Amino acid sequence: VAEPKGIAIVGTGLLGGSIGLGLRAAGYRGRRLGVGRRQQTLEKAAARGCIDSGTCHLSDAAREADLMVLATPLGQFDEVLARLADCQHAGLVVTDVGSVKGSVCAKALELLPHGNLFVGSHPMAGSERQGPDHAQADLFRGRPCILVPGRADEAAVAMVRWLWRTLGMRLLEMTAPEHDLRVAAISHLPHAAAAVLLCNAAEAGAFDVASSGLADTTRVASGDPELWADIFLHNPTAVSRQLESYGQNLQRLRQLIDRRDRPGLANFLRASKQSRDDWLARTTLPPESGE
Amino acid sequence: VAEPKGIAIVGTGLLGGSIGLGLRAAGYRGRRLGVGRRQQTLEKAAARGCIDSGTCHLSDAAREADLMVLATPLGQFDEVLARLADCQHAGLVVTDVGSVKGSVCAKALELLPHGNLFVGSHPMAGSERQGPDHAQADLFRGRPCILVPGRADEAAVAMVRWLWRTLGMRLLEMTAPEHDLRVAAISHLPHAAAAVLLCNAAEAGAFDVASSGLADTTRVASGDPELWADIFLHNPTAVSRQLESYGQNLQRLRQLIDRRDRPGLANFLRASKQSRDDWLARTTLPPESGE
Repeated sequence: VAEPKGIAIVGTGLLGGSIGLGLRAAGYRGRRLGVGRRQQTLEKAAARGCIDSGTCHLSDAAREADLMVLATPLGQFDEVLARLADCQHAGLVVTDVGSVKGSVCAKALELLPHGNLFVGSHPMAGSERQGPDHAQADLFRGRPCILVPGRADEAAVAMVRWLWRTLGMRLLEMTAPEHDLRVAAISHLPHAAAAVLLCNAAEAGAFDVASSGLADTTRVASGDPELWADIFLHNPTAVSRQLESYGQNLQRLRQLIDRRDRPGLANFLRASKQSRDDWLARTTLPPESGE
Repeated sequence: VAEPKGIAIVGTGLLGGSIGLGLRAAGYRGRRLGVGRRQQTLEKAAARGCIDSGTCHLSDAAREADLMVLATPLGQFDEVLARLADCQHAGLVVTDVGSVKGSVCAKALELLPHGNLFVGSHPMAGSERQGPDHAQADLFRGRPCILVPGRADEAAVAMVRWLWRTLGMRLLEMTAPEHDLRVAAISHLPHAAAAVLLCNAAEAGAFDVASSGLADTTRVASGDPELWADIFLHNPTAVSRQLESYGQNLQRLRQLIDRRDRPGLANFLRASKQSRDDWLARTTLPPESGE
């Protein structure tokens, strides 16, 4: 695959900034163009070395780039895709970093003049911290990235694969519904579970006795509430279904406790521990940066 | 408070070993006596510097010590207290590290000849890792420790306070029921929530796309299943009640999603984030050692 000569990064916050830093660290020689709404964020991103130059005009970046990565919050995707509809040329491959794929891929196919050049991506990396100040060159390294090629041209898919591999990611490919179901289970549901744990802690007035167990279990809940409201509402069916089965599984555990069924309880906990330990043993997740 | 001349640590695993290391690091000059069932664990603990000497005979350690810390898994407490009933002398203050206080304090008062020298403790520190190999001198530093003095003699309470303060802990005092309720909310419930999240991930076949969000949210579920079965069954009423209200709070969140109520959803997530951020801003939790 030929490297793209210019890569436009729309949204130079944590994820967009980290893409820029990661590309530079990997020796990418082409141009890294930042696109943002505020000049100040672009200047900060440029000062940190995340991008080579920045512009507030999407069409300027589209003209110069042959790969564009949409790295804004999910709630801005429709607007960005609408603006991109006016300036996507037949050589501009487009991908994104959105946490939901069904709604995003459908919108891209609906709005873009060259929908065959759109490849959905979901790099499974991030942090509860925001902004280019927290961007890291190795944010993506060793983590999974889900590609949703759909019916995109093979050359477009190859270019997007090149991007994430260059950033050190482990690629998986699936359909948008498969993505949205699985990610509901391992990302959207855990976020909901963490947010609700904090309700219980608050209701019990128990924060003064809490320690690292609660801090870890709820880390994700310090993420941006607006972003997460959008994520849930872009994937409401799968999230609601996960919440339903989570409630049923919690009820199973509760019954074991109510019945004082020690062997059953130990089996339940052992199966969970085993599935987690097995997963971490076969994966290559780098250590967390933590709080 | 006069320092105890000898401290017996019953159970020299992660917590007991860390108590021993922490005492030495704090300059404690008295004798640190390890008590264990297996000679091998005691030798390992001694080799790591967690204890000065070890014995398999509780009565030997009881004779030499004026403070004894029960740091075995919760499931062994009844047996240890029964054996201690035969050898507690009128100068031996006893405390513990158990995650539940109601059942433990009641048993101590029932069995010990000098129940007025028993002070319940719950140092809020630990790890999903086990054994003296993972003991750390600073495991307790900066973390909360809940004391349940009950009707213990003031001198006994003072000695137990000395212990945890020497290890750098922030002390809180409350009754056993208050402890069990609050800890159900911030420790037992989060453990249950994490274990059940792993059921959902397994049922969705989604571990291959999971990343650090799931790893953090479920870290505690890699703890010892036998120990946690015992913890839940020593505090079944409070845990069951927390699971019930957790289910109701999850249902509230689910309804906001089902109704596509974006402002309501953002408010819910904002309140959770705020309570977590406020808590961490006013606490002094040291950074996690992590995975």
